[in-house]
Amino acid sequence: MPFPTEHVAPPEALATPEPIGDVPAVPTRSAAEEARTLVANGEVAGLSTLSDGGHPWGSLVTYGVLENGAPVVLVSTLAEHGRNLVGDPRASIVVAATLLPGQDPLDSGRVTLAGRMREPADGVEHAEASGAMTSSSPAAALYGTFGDFTLWVLDIERVRWVGGYGRMDSVTPEAYAAAAPDPVGPSAAYAVSHLNADHAGALLDMARALAGFPDATAAVCSRADRFGLDLVMQTPRGTAYGRVGFATPCTEPDGLRAATVELTRRARA
Amino acid sequence: MPFPTEHVAPPEALATPEPIGDVPAVPTRSAAEEARTLVANGEVAGLSTLSDGGHPWGSLVTYGVLENGAPVVLVSTLAEHGRNLVGDPRASIVVAATLLPGQDPLDSGRVTLAGRMREPADGVEHAEASGAMTSSSPAAALYGTFGDFTLWVLDIERVRWVGGYGRMDSVTPEAYAAAAPDPVGPSAAYAVSHLNADHAGALLDMARALAGFPDATAAVCSRADRFGLDLVMQTPRGTAYGRVGFATPCTEPDGLRAATVELTRRARA
Repeated sequence: MPFPTEHVAPPEALATPEPIGDVPAVPTRSAAEEARTLVANGEVAGLSTLSDGGHPWGSLVTYGVLENGAPVVLVSTLAEHGRNLVGDPRASIVVAATLLPGQDPLDSGRVTLAGRMREPADGVEHAEASGAMTSSSPAAALYGTFGDFTLWVLDIERVRWVGGYGRMDSVTPEAYAAAAPDPVGPSAAYAVSHLNADHAGALLDMARALAGFPDATAAVCSRADRFGLDLVMQTPRGTAYGRVGFATPCTEPDGLRAATVELTRRARA
Repeated sequence: MPFPTEHVAPPEALATPEPIGDVPAVPTRSAAEEARTLVANGEVAGLSTLSDGGHPWGSLVTYGVLENGAPVVLVSTLAEHGRNLVGDPRASIVVAATLLPGQDPLDSGRVTLAGRMREPADGVEHAEASGAMTSSSPAAALYGTFGDFTLWVLDIERVRWVGGYGRMDSVTPEAYAAAAPDPVGPSAAYAVSHLNADHAGALLDMARALAGFPDATAAVCSRADRFGLDLVMQTPRGTAYGRVGFATPCTEPDGLRAATVELTRRARA
């Protein structure tokens, strides 16, 4: 029996209110950019390897990232995942976004990178991999000198990004390598918390004036990226989802503050 | 070539100062209790399944916990992990402790539960599994009614706990099922943060008077459990690791406050 290709549920189960009037389309990050942003900003990853007999084995690792987005891990053969990689190089790495307080984990970002692990190809790549590992996980500077530890680079074969409910896509390894992390990735979680804690009125004005929900009675920001803000709004018609765009995309890590100030000014004009 | 059974490193690489004088042994949680505590207090897990051809595939899930500690997941065959479980029930679940600010992820707790997924055995188990899933992940109340979602229970075959550097053990499925989560598990992270932020003097007094490091110049708490506190101390002999025990083990979720007050009083007696 083939698997379904859509949720098997009554259509009204997932229905949400539509915006009223014309609302400009706001660009979104590509799935490749989403994936690169998650990997660039993560601290820990889930590593899946194969134990004896091909049983899938999950473990926690710290990781570094090469210039092309490939993750690097440093693992010991004292640990099962280290022995597993020696026996079979097939592996995957999952990185999840840090959750905001109260956030539904299923409505947050995560990405799976699947492929094969290999040792660095040459001294140049070994130096890059070692440097990436040590800069993300300072303990690697000590453990990297131990004889039971091996540095592995993931050759990516498949990339699957999930951004939350109804936001997901696959990415080719080439598109993943060519994309760049969003420059505002490191500051987005703080910006969202700050907007929700201290600027609820500005968010509601954006919802009413710019997102197409003049009937909104409350609005919270669920995500921020270089192009704009995602909003979750309460309306008499039910909980609504929308998006408001910045005048120009952010190009600097600290760009969200000025962009949201401009957005607030426009919502109140 | 057999894998090494100890770190391949000069002995001094991992040497730390010894306590001075007699220090009473402080009980520790069993590995089974550590594992049950991590699973009871986690919010998300890494799920490892097998994709076509047996490639290990990692994904993020929310999960519930049965009375015996078995994790439950609710996944859709629209998602790769859901299709994977239909094709091959072998799986593992990794749960990691929430990191304290600045904590080294490799010195924090995580546990891998490996086994086979199966659908609930009967209506009674289905009700328990569904209730466990919904109480941990409210969205499951909606998605559980969709035809593309399946509720899976993990029949645990192997348990591997890692608590941090040099703290790790395997647990039999029987010992895991028989153990109980530490009652102070839900409040331990807050207690550790609060002790470090507001009671550095008390921690230093404990280090000097009770942990065997009269030469300590600073102390931070790295972990709290029903039996006591783990301390990381600065001494002229280097960074030291120790443990101080409560007068009586905590039996209630809110027991850490009174236990640490008593510990402080004893350190200053």
